[in-house]
Amino acid sequence: MNWDQVWIDVNVATMDASSSLPYGAIENAAIAVKDGKVAWIGPRADLPQFDALATPIYRGKGKWITPGLIDAHTHLVFAGSRANEFEMRLQGASYEDIARAGGGIISTVKACREADEETLFDLGRKRLNTLAKEGVTTVEIKSGYGLDTETELKLLRVAKALGQHHHIDVKTTFLGAHAIPAEYKTQPDAYVDLVINDMLPQVIQHKLADAVDVFCEGIAFNLEQTERVLIAAKNAGLAIKLHAEQLSNIGGSELAARLNALSVDHIEHLDEAGVKALSESGTCAVLLPGAYYFLRETKLPPIELLRQYKVPMVIASDFNPGSSPICSTKLMLNMACTLFRLTPEEALKGMTLNAAKALGIEKSVGSLVVGKQADFCLWDISSPAELAYTFGVNPCEQVIKAGKIIQQ
Amino acid sequence: MNWDQVWIDVNVATMDASSSLPYGAIENAAIAVKDGKVAWIGPRADLPQFDALATPIYRGKGKWITPGLIDAHTHLVFAGSRANEFEMRLQGASYEDIARAGGGIISTVKACREADEETLFDLGRKRLNTLAKEGVTTVEIKSGYGLDTETELKLLRVAKALGQHHHIDVKTTFLGAHAIPAEYKTQPDAYVDLVINDMLPQVIQHKLADAVDVFCEGIAFNLEQTERVLIAAKNAGLAIKLHAEQLSNIGGSELAARLNALSVDHIEHLDEAGVKALSESGTCAVLLPGAYYFLRETKLPPIELLRQYKVPMVIASDFNPGSSPICSTKLMLNMACTLFRLTPEEALKGMTLNAAKALGIEKSVGSLVVGKQADFCLWDISSPAELAYTFGVNPCEQVIKAGKIIQQ
Ligand SMILES: [Zn+2]
Ligand SMILES: [Zn+2]
Repeated sequence: MNWDQVWIDVNVATMDASSSLPYGAIENAAIAVKDGKVAWIGPRADLPQFDALATPIYRGKGKWITPGLIDAHTHLVFAGSRANEFEMRLQGASYEDIARAGGGIISTVKACREADEETLFDLGRKRLNTLAKEGVTTVEIKSGYGLDTETELKLLRVAKALGQHHHIDVKTTFLGAHAIPAEYKTQPDAYVDLVINDMLPQVIQHKLADAVDVFCEGIAFNLEQTERVLIAAKNAGLAIKLHAEQLSNIGGSELAARLNALSVDHIEHLDEAGVKALSESGTCAVLLPGAYYFLRETKLPPIELLRQYKVPMVIASDFNPGSSPICSTKLMLNMACTLFRLTPEEALKGMTLNAAKALGIEKSVGSLVVGKQADFCLWDISSPAELAYTFGVNPCEQVIKAGKIIQQ
Repeated sequence: MNWDQVWIDVNVATMDASSSLPYGAIENAAIAVKDGKVAWIGPRADLPQFDALATPIYRGKGKWITPGLIDAHTHLVFAGSRANEFEMRLQGASYEDIARAGGGIISTVKACREADEETLFDLGRKRLNTLAKEGVTTVEIKSGYGLDTETELKLLRVAKALGQHHHIDVKTTFLGAHAIPAEYKTQPDAYVDLVINDMLPQVIQHKLADAVDVFCEGIAFNLEQTERVLIAAKNAGLAIKLHAEQLSNIGGSELAARLNALSVDHIEHLDEAGVKALSESGTCAVLLPGAYYFLRETKLPPIELLRQYKVPMVIASDFNPGSSPICSTKLMLNMACTLFRLTPEEALKGMTLNAAKALGIEKSVGSLVVGKQADFCLWDISSPAELAYTFGVNPCEQVIKAGKIIQQ
């Protein structure tokens, strides 16, 4: 055997779907990498002979390895702060007061339109660095704070550039239909036309997005508008996903399932018919405990139904300045358990294998099996449940991206 | 003027109680330190002449300075993990199942009794390092996971040693009366005797504690037992404080107020009479949003009454393995606002000036005024509210402890 590097004396939570063990765990395991991929994985006792003198060997002293974490839903390229609005609300200001003071999504849109690409890139890089320290190896980033063609393209270019300059892989999503901008308040359909006929063709032409998303909600885009955008995206060969059933159930998830969307995200208000539709289409349910926490929601997503219908549950940060200003995937593992009552295994699966499914990349990442990209983390923990149980002291000791040790 | 170092081009949230401005803010300010203390602070325009060639000058580029953060309630010296119990509960196990599996506080007590001082010290140091990165300069640490004389003293020795070897100042609290140990289950009064007659004298003899605390609750120590411990502590000249009114209202806070305790902590179930008593005695109310979050409590502490009666509100992490396994003071600022609806200013005051009051050290730290110790942080934020609003990307750029730049 001729490998690039070998890890021994480790326990591995492979998250391998074909394993019948919790976390797909292999205790006292070994992993060998070659050309950026997992070349061998199994119990150390079964490790084939290899040239131990010529191969770097890392001894894990009984620590745990998991797949690199994947944050499948973020809005992390944005400028401006909404601290003022946060403070005003806690001082008793009404939503009208805040709107009059220029708050709300409009303030982020304004800041993003004004910011140059370098500023946005620097902000995004700091955020990726923060996630990387926690063991994140893949992040999805949405546009949606431009709401005009120029700025939407700018946000996607920055997101793409972040992926090119950072070891974290970035998947980009075009979310031009995030909100109806002030300029189109009285003619939302005209804005949908702009998204479909002006923004989308340029997104496609410059290969700026892997997927297209819409905020389907009473306060945003209705079912018909949503369907128009998603079908245009599908016709262009892009994957689709949806912000759906966050504040009410208007049938977005069933629409998304019918169109074979990768995921529906939020879904606090989803009912059994919707869950069944997701199950039939293989669409993932992306749960966002950070927004639930920050907005002090009380309606939980239908976790028990999702389990019953075997819908893959994903946990993501939804990091954004308005409803989830928390740039930490690891905290989301804790919130998924504490607030949504997921088991630590479900939470970790929701940030590895199922998160990969939600991004359409489960063939190459999300679990540790031979042939997949060698994206993994070494954790100073005594059981995988610790990743969700405790927060604060960072147990991430190594991040390996495509077989290379990126940080330790 | 002959100063050791000067900071200019900064905005300062002094938290000075005598200021009428929010956060006691001075924009475009300067701070000079000399011999570890604040020697001058005010608008930069008023800065007296000094020898600018001989004095290191730090230019803050409009960033913000606040007093160093103070975590006034932690149990951060402990061994063992309760991840297994966390996972079992989420898998549907009952409290009996968990108790049978050796879970609960008993598992932490067992781990602490077995751990040597070096192990406990290393665990504690990692936790202090984590807090230090967030801008914490003073931490209170309680014993209470020994529940026998030997281990209680060991935990306090470790806490003291941490303070001696770390730039973070540590205040120690003897919490022998944290729970009734299994050995005394049928004779709690005999355990109280042990606390008073065996543990406390040795704690005093070896100067291991600054204060004494009791968990006063239906499931722990009743009012009479609590009073016996607190009076013994007072008679020995130690400050006192109380875990009170967390799960029910049994009058602990009124007792604490009557005995002039520094603080009562938790107090979700405190009523108006209790709040009034605190107000009259000048006792602080320590609010612990991490435990509220982790235990999924629904009963909020009486914030509005505390405001009305001008009881100093303190925010602390309560970091412990059972009910608040979150080693982050900064996250507590967010939780104080998000869950308890404090304003960002109230939250920050609760981790600076009021936290100092709860530890009886407000004459030397907690706000930035001439003569106090120069404990402060430089933050890359555009307003102090940002400290509470967002979480994840660490904005702490410098920590200054007793006038020295400790980290940057
Ligand atoms: Zn979102
Ligand atoms: Zn406590």
